[in-house]
Amino acid sequence: MANTKKYVYLFSEGNGSMRELLGGKGANLAEMTNLGMPVPQGFTVSTEACTRYYDDGRAIAPDIQEEILSYLTKLEEITGKKLGDTSNPLLVSVRSGARASMPGMMDTILNLGINDEVAEVMAEKTKNPRFVYDAYRRFIQMFSDVVMELPRDKFEELLSVMKDDRGVKLDSELGAGDLKELVGQFKAYYKERMGTDFPSDPKVQLMESVKAVFRSWDNPRANVYRRMNDIPYSWGTAVNVQSMVFGNMGDDSGTGVAFTRDPATGERKLYGEFLMNAQGEDVVAGIRTPQTIDQLKETNPEVYEQFADIANRLENHYRDMQDMEFTIEHGKLYMLQTRNGKRTAQAALKIAVALVNEGMCTKEEALLKIEPKQLDALLHPRFDGKALKAAKPVASGLPASPGAACGAVYFTAEAAKEHSVDGPVLLVRAETSPEDIEGMSVSQGILTARGGRTSHAAVVARGMGTCCVAGCSALHIDEKAGTLTVAGNVVREGDFMSIDGVTGNVYIGKIPTVEAEVAGEFATVMEWADEVRDLTVRANADNPKDAATALKFGAQGIGLCRTEHMFFDPERIPAVREMIVSQTEEQRRKALSKLLPMQRGDFEGIFKAMLGKPVTIRLLDPPLHEFLPTEDEDIRALAEDMGLTFESLRHTVHELHEVNPMMGLRGCRLPICYPEIGEMQTQAIIEAAINVMKESGQEVVPEIMVPLVSSGAEIRYLRKLITTTADSVISKSGVNLRYKVGTMIELPRAAVSADRIAQEAEFFSFGTNDLTQMSYGLSRDDSGKFLPTYLDRKIYESDPFEKFDILGTGRLVEYAAKLGRSTRPDIHLGVCGEHGGDPSSIEFFHQAGLDYVSCSPFRVPIARLAAAHAAIKYPRKK
Amino acid sequence: MANTKKYVYLFSEGNGSMRELLGGKGANLAEMTNLGMPVPQGFTVSTEACTRYYDDGRAIAPDIQEEILSYLTKLEEITGKKLGDTSNPLLVSVRSGARASMPGMMDTILNLGINDEVAEVMAEKTKNPRFVYDAYRRFIQMFSDVVMELPRDKFEELLSVMKDDRGVKLDSELGAGDLKELVGQFKAYYKERMGTDFPSDPKVQLMESVKAVFRSWDNPRANVYRRMNDIPYSWGTAVNVQSMVFGNMGDDSGTGVAFTRDPATGERKLYGEFLMNAQGEDVVAGIRTPQTIDQLKETNPEVYEQFADIANRLENHYRDMQDMEFTIEHGKLYMLQTRNGKRTAQAALKIAVALVNEGMCTKEEALLKIEPKQLDALLHPRFDGKALKAAKPVASGLPASPGAACGAVYFTAEAAKEHSVDGPVLLVRAETSPEDIEGMSVSQGILTARGGRTSHAAVVARGMGTCCVAGCSALHIDEKAGTLTVAGNVVREGDFMSIDGVTGNVYIGKIPTVEAEVAGEFATVMEWADEVRDLTVRANADNPKDAATALKFGAQGIGLCRTEHMFFDPERIPAVREMIVSQTEEQRRKALSKLLPMQRGDFEGIFKAMLGKPVTIRLLDPPLHEFLPTEDEDIRALAEDMGLTFESLRHTVHELHEVNPMMGLRGCRLPICYPEIGEMQTQAIIEAAINVMKESGQEVVPEIMVPLVSSGAEIRYLRKLITTTADSVISKSGVNLRYKVGTMIELPRAAVSADRIAQEAEFFSFGTNDLTQMSYGLSRDDSGKFLPTYLDRKIYESDPFEKFDILGTGRLVEYAAKLGRSTRPDIHLGVCGEHGGDPSSIEFFHQAGLDYVSCSPFRVPIARLAAAHAAIKYPRKK
Repeated sequence: MANTKKYVYLFSEGNGSMRELLGGKGANLAEMTNLGMPVPQGFTVSTEACTRYYDDGRAIAPDIQEEILSYLTKLEEITGKKLGDTSNPLLVSVRSGARASMPGMMDTILNLGINDEVAEVMAEKTKNPRFVYDAYRRFIQMFSDVVMELPRDKFEELLSVMKDDRGVKLDSELGAGDLKELVGQFKAYYKERMGTDFPSDPKVQLMESVKAVFRSWDNPRANVYRRMNDIPYSWGTAVNVQSMVFGNMGDDSGTGVAFTRDPATGERKLYGEFLMNAQGEDVVAGIRTPQTIDQLKETNPEVYEQFADIANRLENHYRDMQDMEFTIEHGKLYMLQTRNGKRTAQAALKIAVALVNEGMCTKEEALLKIEPKQLDALLHPRFDGKALKAAKPVASGLPASPGAACGAVYFTAEAAKEHSVDGPVLLVRAETSPEDIEGMSVSQGILTARGGRTSHAAVVARGMGTCCVAGCSALHIDEKAGTLTVAGNVVREGDFMSIDGVTGNVYIGKIPTVEAEVAGEFATVMEWADEVRDLTVRANADNPKDAATALKFGAQGIGLCRTEHMFFDPERIPAVREMIVSQTEEQRRKALSKLLPMQRGDFEGIFKAMLGKPVTIRLLDPPLHEFLPTEDEDIRALAEDMGLTFESLRHTVHELHEVNPMMGLRGCRLPICYPEIGEMQTQAIIEAAINVMKESGQEVVPEIMVPLVSSGAEIRYLRKLITTTADSVISKSGVNLRYKVGTMIELPRAAVSADRIAQEAEFFSFGTNDLTQMSYGLSRDDSGKFLPTYLDRKIYESDPFEKFDILGTGRLVEYAAKLGRSTRPDIHLGVCGEHGGDPSSIEFFHQAGLDYVSCSPFRVPIARLAAAHAAIKYPRKK
Repeated sequence: MANTKKYVYLFSEGNGSMRELLGGKGANLAEMTNLGMPVPQGFTVSTEACTRYYDDGRAIAPDIQEEILSYLTKLEEITGKKLGDTSNPLLVSVRSGARASMPGMMDTILNLGINDEVAEVMAEKTKNPRFVYDAYRRFIQMFSDVVMELPRDKFEELLSVMKDDRGVKLDSELGAGDLKELVGQFKAYYKERMGTDFPSDPKVQLMESVKAVFRSWDNPRANVYRRMNDIPYSWGTAVNVQSMVFGNMGDDSGTGVAFTRDPATGERKLYGEFLMNAQGEDVVAGIRTPQTIDQLKETNPEVYEQFADIANRLENHYRDMQDMEFTIEHGKLYMLQTRNGKRTAQAALKIAVALVNEGMCTKEEALLKIEPKQLDALLHPRFDGKALKAAKPVASGLPASPGAACGAVYFTAEAAKEHSVDGPVLLVRAETSPEDIEGMSVSQGILTARGGRTSHAAVVARGMGTCCVAGCSALHIDEKAGTLTVAGNVVREGDFMSIDGVTGNVYIGKIPTVEAEVAGEFATVMEWADEVRDLTVRANADNPKDAATALKFGAQGIGLCRTEHMFFDPERIPAVREMIVSQTEEQRRKALSKLLPMQRGDFEGIFKAMLGKPVTIRLLDPPLHEFLPTEDEDIRALAEDMGLTFESLRHTVHELHEVNPMMGLRGCRLPICYPEIGEMQTQAIIEAAINVMKESGQEVVPEIMVPLVSSGAEIRYLRKLITTTADSVISKSGVNLRYKVGTMIELPRAAVSADRIAQEAEFFSFGTNDLTQMSYGLSRDDSGKFLPTYLDRKIYESDPFEKFDILGTGRLVEYAAKLGRSTRPDIHLGVCGEHGGDPSSIEFFHQAGLDYVSCSPFRVPIARLAAAHAAIKYPRKK
């Protein structure tokens, strides 16, 4: 049968725009070839071949094998050499190359095509048998390791034994004979383990290597990397087969890597290192100390000039900082790779601004060169670089919330709070619970022994922008004794520890931290982002401190102020519990009257902090169990307060127990069943707004948001309750206060009934956390047990609580936006789930036509940049 | 301002088709007027006036008041009498009349327009002061009661005192003077309680009465009735103002009610009763024994003939059995009302068949005259009528599952099972749990002290078709002592009790029951229904017994066989628990191998029972907590079985605890995480099908259904697992077995991703219970606490778990059907939630274009008829 689809491309057939098909490496090799640069020629097996490999049950179909061999023939014609030939043998390298750079995959096999006969011919031709047998033994080692998955150690061991035997220390001290003998040993070991001879047929070597690259696309490291970086599994990888050039042909040969700008600082200068008489892996191995690229200028000015010229041309061509690999063979320069270089966040900002100033690209193009997530590193305290180098971690956990923290450790929220007035504290617990919220908020950092990236500690810490390391199972906390044991060290309460929320490392002792700076290029880039984005960016903040942080990072308002977070304060929780267990409206009103002044004070603080900017306050929305007393002593204390018997209160608490609290008496169901709760909260919000308006003379516009609405009737009922209460307070005050009433859209039924809900709601805020939960029927509290299996088996591409589920839940958002606007064309639409700070989710929200996203204060700059990216990539029709 | 909208209609302006505007009573009075029948004239205030009354904050707007008064003038012109006139006074009745008959509302005020002056004039004109003052005191009583909500008792008490005082026993023995005195006492009491004089202005009396009718639309009784009968709150009621005729004018006057056919049996003959010299309320009050309508033929043949002629004309006109009210005033017949008569289920069937045989209507029209829900009464055992009359209930609970049962009481499922071999048993428990399932299945009836209509006992009993009375709080069960106390009686285990699942009544002792009969007219009607319906009707059945019942009632297959119900068997539960707590695949496979033969046996039984008809078997779908051992002794026993320590197993059980089990590790998540579970179930299903095919030689087509699917990837993964396992079993067997793989659509995300899911699923079955839960974010286990408030405050019109939520969740069903068919045009679509047996929900499923519904076996005939109704009302484009 005729093979109609093309799976293989010569470098000269491709170009830089063919990344999807040829992978980044292949496309760039093709582009450099087109630019007339000195590239050892070769061909690329496309990503579509990889997809077919998986579709065909992990096999390379015969038609593709044939095509590969026919391109090998073309390559042999170009180079004038032949693979496995005994007169003029061709050696090739085989490298993986996906659309995006993927460190988790198989990287490189060098010197492929060598066997006993070829080696002999080459030894004779090059008059350099040592070089040849060194290349041979390296090939066997690499092939066995990456293609056949034999343990690398064994080969290293045989090498060591040989050196000991010969009484030498360095590999380079071994002679050709020694290396030839080693080749024999390697092959013997291979046969012993594999049961077959080491493949001497170069075509077999080639096909097995291509297969191994395809296979490596699905290895666990690659899967983890992909999930972390939002790279779809469906992309597949390409394979590059390139004729070998040798940097280890003698002292006029060498190999190196270089960047067109400093990847750490962004400074404009050629930056890199190289080794003479070496192959690529020697640079990485670190046995010999490489020279800096500047030294090449001195030792080999001609090659340096040629390279510097190429580097300059590449940067101008790609209009971005380049990361290049090169080899010098007998004084001749070859380019082996170029790509846009990875860089630190600091460097990314500096380079972006510089490229615009140098006229290399537009602001929009420059913005797209900065990964929004990278900014995170600039928004939190970091350890002082020098001090960190001197420190040694004693354990590590999951990096759950970025930043660095150092403080005296305490094992209870109460102790942390008590000592926080004396200096920085670190809260260390087995796991945290809602009762710990105040202790968490006063701590520099939070360290837990149990729980994952979506545990209570992690979620709350990220919301607060507080550094957190979670699930550090090496910790053994003895709360009673006031001690913690880790890696054989005993730490007492009050002793100092330091944690790194970016790496997950845990240290004993103090490591000084430095505050985040927001200025210079960072400010410039944010300005550019603000110019182009369509989405407004608000922040989720529950208190004046968070509101101030949000403002500092450029939030345009508060999109979500959760009133229940204020309720966990230990001074308030008794009144909150009293409200919940009340059996009569009278009891409940008594409890509410205690809470009213506290709530009013909270809101005054937030309105003051955000003066002139909108603040959306959500009415109470807890699953009840979060507030209920569970310990007998708490029940006893509350019963005493309320003049009840212990038994009767315990009975009430038992009655309030819910089988599925997430779908129980919460959200708008509370003020519908107990209108006095909604009245109290409305009164507190409106009175606070009036007080702040009177005091400041400036307008305050509170937006009252009703959670967990499922139907038009619910919001109609509560809108009436809210406006009745609010209007009565306003008319008494004589102040002309405007306010809005809107809803969360966080239930699937709300999304599909949005036309009716919009009759009563002036704004919608998509609560994507709950919407995801209900849409999937997936409890966030419980999914941790099986979500890893789902990710491993690729049932889900990513955790839908981290990256918004565009394909499914996204449809509900789209329906709701459309239905809502059909009723109320000017309805204000936003998002206030955690997805509001996730760049790929923001891209979707922009496309869905929403008006704003709201995220935690520390993600505001990320959201601003991500919104700009979205607007550049998908311009809205205005 | 001009009043452009018409709110009031003379009887002569309306007709029978104007039910929506005039209510049933008003439309029929208009129709009878048009037919030239003797109807006392009047006018109807429309349902739209009622809606405006509520829109205007419970007030009758001035323009409507004016319109009412102008129609009053027209009525005065027609009758030649005037309201409140002292020469020729008009008296009127005021009656409510909604679109559907609504016993919960205010019914009637008679004799309105009377006051002291009018009474005097009338006494003179009629020469019958006794009649006049009797009418007067009745009016005060009715007006005070239904308009002013004064307690009725007090008036009755004054009447009693008067009779005692006069030394008489009957009202009729009181003279005109006594009654006049009573009028004075009534007015004095009215003033004492209300603080104002009794309104003597007839127009005030009229307007207050109209208001009272409107107000009664929203009283608690009316709301309960509406919810029970699916009548929307938005309809409103009309008010009929009609000139009075008097059946209490003397012995040539009278009043009565009659049916054109016997409402109990359906027999064709005039059926009814009347009282001479009486007003309507006397017939109802039952103080005097009414005469049968046949007696009227003897005493007043002319009036009888006239009435019989009218009755006949009305039945022919409406082509249905009529329920009529009439009054004879001085020998002249007046028709006060006609409507399609309420009838027993038995009568409904007989009348429907008769009407068709008599050529009165088509089969389709006849089908529409039978309320599907009514059939329920014919499908369960009933108490023997005579025996029931002699029995007296000792308590009552909620009628949770229809039927009647009589048996020896036992307080544990084990005891019930043990004694069920000796004779009929009744399981009596505080509440039931999944462990009781076997004891429930062997009992004639289930009686619980706690829980509502959606409690475990109620839901399971309805599913089984077993009679159940739930929440009978008067029961005090002492399980240890083996006694039960109710209303002062002590019942011991083994004693007999009887319960009525239709009324909720509970009896001590034996009441014999009679089995349901399914034949005659019932069979004829079902045949007609089957001819016209488009929806296929299947049944939910988990065992051969239920499957046989389903077949008997006409099920065309099994739409849902829940495999987990088989797992609760006490002999199996240890193996099930072992499977759940297994830490390794090996442990799990060991447990599964114990379950395999049991499951295979279950499926063989069902396939045999349903031979030739499709059977959909759902893979395991429990929230785990339903299976987990909770008691220490169960954990200890299981640990011993498995060779584990108690502590380690308790730890595992603790680890498996879920915060929201309904959204936890259940459904398809189980076989995705533990493929061996899915393999075992598939193997059991396929082997059972093969065995039955081999044995019977007939084809068996199992349909394997995957629950809780949220994405295409899940069903892709499981389809592969199922087909791999199934195909391997089939190929070994040599039998040519076909099977299908499909999914539940019970998560909102599944509904909106149905296009992708349909790529892998051959059928969808909407699990409307879970879909409702997830769509609303409403836990069925927990909603009982606040749902009543929601219904009271009209936030929800009905319980969405009973009546499918068409407006919200229905949209998800519509999306899913459309998306599913876009991928796979011939995909088979059905419903297997409890809504599959609810007539109004079935109407929606028909309109949404589904192929089938599946419901509990005892609802199959109801579903067949409801599906026929839907097809008649909303013909599908073929």
